[in-house]
Amino acid sequence: MDAAALSSVTRDDIAAAADRLRGHAVRTPLLNAPSLDDAIGRRIWIKAECLQKTGSFKFRGAYNAVSQTVGDVLAFSSGNHAQGVALAARMLGRQAVIVMPSDAPEVKIANTRSYGAEVVLYDRAGENREDIGARLVADRGLALVRPYDDPRVIAGQGTCGLEIAEDLPETVSEVLVCCGGGGLTSGVALALEGRATVRPVEPEGFDDVARSLAAGERQTNAALSGSLCDAILTPTPGELTFPILQRLCGPGLVITDAEALRAMALAWQHLRIVLEPGGAAALAAALFHHSDDVAVVASGGNVDRAVFTQALAGSAG
Amino acid sequence: MDAAALSSVTRDDIAAAADRLRGHAVRTPLLNAPSLDDAIGRRIWIKAECLQKTGSFKFRGAYNAVSQTVGDVLAFSSGNHAQGVALAARMLGRQAVIVMPSDAPEVKIANTRSYGAEVVLYDRAGENREDIGARLVADRGLALVRPYDDPRVIAGQGTCGLEIAEDLPETVSEVLVCCGGGGLTSGVALALEGRATVRPVEPEGFDDVARSLAAGERQTNAALSGSLCDAILTPTPGELTFPILQRLCGPGLVITDAEALRAMALAWQHLRIVLEPGGAAALAAALFHHSDDVAVVASGGNVDRAVFTQALAGSAG
Repeated sequence: MDAAALSSVTRDDIAAAADRLRGHAVRTPLLNAPSLDDAIGRRIWIKAECLQKTGSFKFRGAYNAVSQTVGDVLAFSSGNHAQGVALAARMLGRQAVIVMPSDAPEVKIANTRSYGAEVVLYDRAGENREDIGARLVADRGLALVRPYDDPRVIAGQGTCGLEIAEDLPETVSEVLVCCGGGGLTSGVALALEGRATVRPVEPEGFDDVARSLAAGERQTNAALSGSLCDAILTPTPGELTFPILQRLCGPGLVITDAEALRAMALAWQHLRIVLEPGGAAALAAALFHHSDDVAVVASGGNVDRAVFTQALAGSAG
Repeated sequence: MDAAALSSVTRDDIAAAADRLRGHAVRTPLLNAPSLDDAIGRRIWIKAECLQKTGSFKFRGAYNAVSQTVGDVLAFSSGNHAQGVALAARMLGRQAVIVMPSDAPEVKIANTRSYGAEVVLYDRAGENREDIGARLVADRGLALVRPYDDPRVIAGQGTCGLEIAEDLPETVSEVLVCCGGGGLTSGVALALEGRATVRPVEPEGFDDVARSLAAGERQTNAALSGSLCDAILTPTPGELTFPILQRLCGPGLVITDAEALRAMALAWQHLRIVLEPGGAAALAAALFHHSDDVAVVASGGNVDRAVFTQALAGSAG
């Protein structure tokens, strides 16, 4: 893909994605908890994408992309993108093939299969997933759906931003977004251009986007694992997403795992929603690294019981 | 109140309530979890009223009622109605006085105060709350907002049914509703009249509505406590609500506390919402006492951490 592909992600593309998703994706609410606002002394609005089909915003981009392909589809993912593509494909009458590492969590493999996908497991140590994917594309004519560096995926995630714009109080001008490769963040930033500034939020040690925005060029993380926020750990900003982030976003914010767990407990108590650590990152930034009224995207809620129980155990409630 | 008051609860009243609530109440989504549907072999749609302001549908009726009173308001409640009236009053610039038993859970007293209400505690053993309320009405000119036997409250709860009608797939013709005094159940039944049949769901041992419907006259429960489903424990169907339930509802369904806990865990896992036992009763009925595609109201999510952890501990996830 080249610069021409990038320039093709417009607000019209996002509006077209919204038309495709209507009646298929959940129109998620922008929640507000007066009891939480009172406790912290300012107001937070929470876009509850954990209520989206498959439990994360990923379904939006996946459905928008798959609906523009012909035939069966392929994705690499051990997480939320896998589930989004699997369900989107099933709803559109296609077969999805998902290449997953054999050491991916049992529950994520099971979830992906439950949406009807064919799961191809590979050994991280001995095999290269790109080779496996290339073979599947060649042998079976599958269409690859990337997790963020795809204009159709960015436009699909942008529909979340269009909905925020419809519900956001006029006085709020900043939206914090949990950020991995930047598909959601860039899509929401495009949808809110001229209405609100978007700021990416990342976990400590995996702040490639924040550092890239500060440096003016794409930076890479030293580690690839080691945070509870598994949903938003990516090595470097996307090739297509970074120029959008650079043009539209404010400075990045960084949160700790402990702050993400605390945000999960407060979301449970005051908003009655279930978040995973990576999906609570933006709320954590609003609570612990911000001082104004603000909106956040609560991007996903696919979490193991042990991690969720850990979050509740650390809370006062 | 007499029969004339009853006849005043019409679909026009519910539509008027929806106008009053617009922009103030959450327009909650009707969720569906394909992974849960696959596991049980049929489809369930879940109206997520736990996402409503104050964590339960009660805010709808409270706001509709308070907005039609003049001056400050009074309510008796140790639970969700207290919080609904307290926040509605604050949003409308009124003072709420809530009479609560002194042995009510600390967290519910604290929540009610956090919405700005004046909490008047009384001793269940030595004092009569009706006397305290009558004195407050006489001394301070407060307007009493009853939890269910008030046409304005029934109309407000009915707005939940109007929203269900907008989102419900055409093939679904039955809606299960968690039922205490019957304010929500009668309001939803009126809103869905001619579109779907409503069936009340109650906890074992507190099935006064199911028995009353079967007997053709109001029955009373033997006990007043002893179920985890505290939100829907009432001694007998309401004077205003029962004739509506009788005219419009199908037979009642009864669930156990263990089934409510299991439904809470499945809602956490598949829908990423937080339910309290009483708020999970209708989902439990759909899962364990029903055999068709159906919609349910998940009516509330104000739950202690200990009870929630108990629900998760019993689950397989």
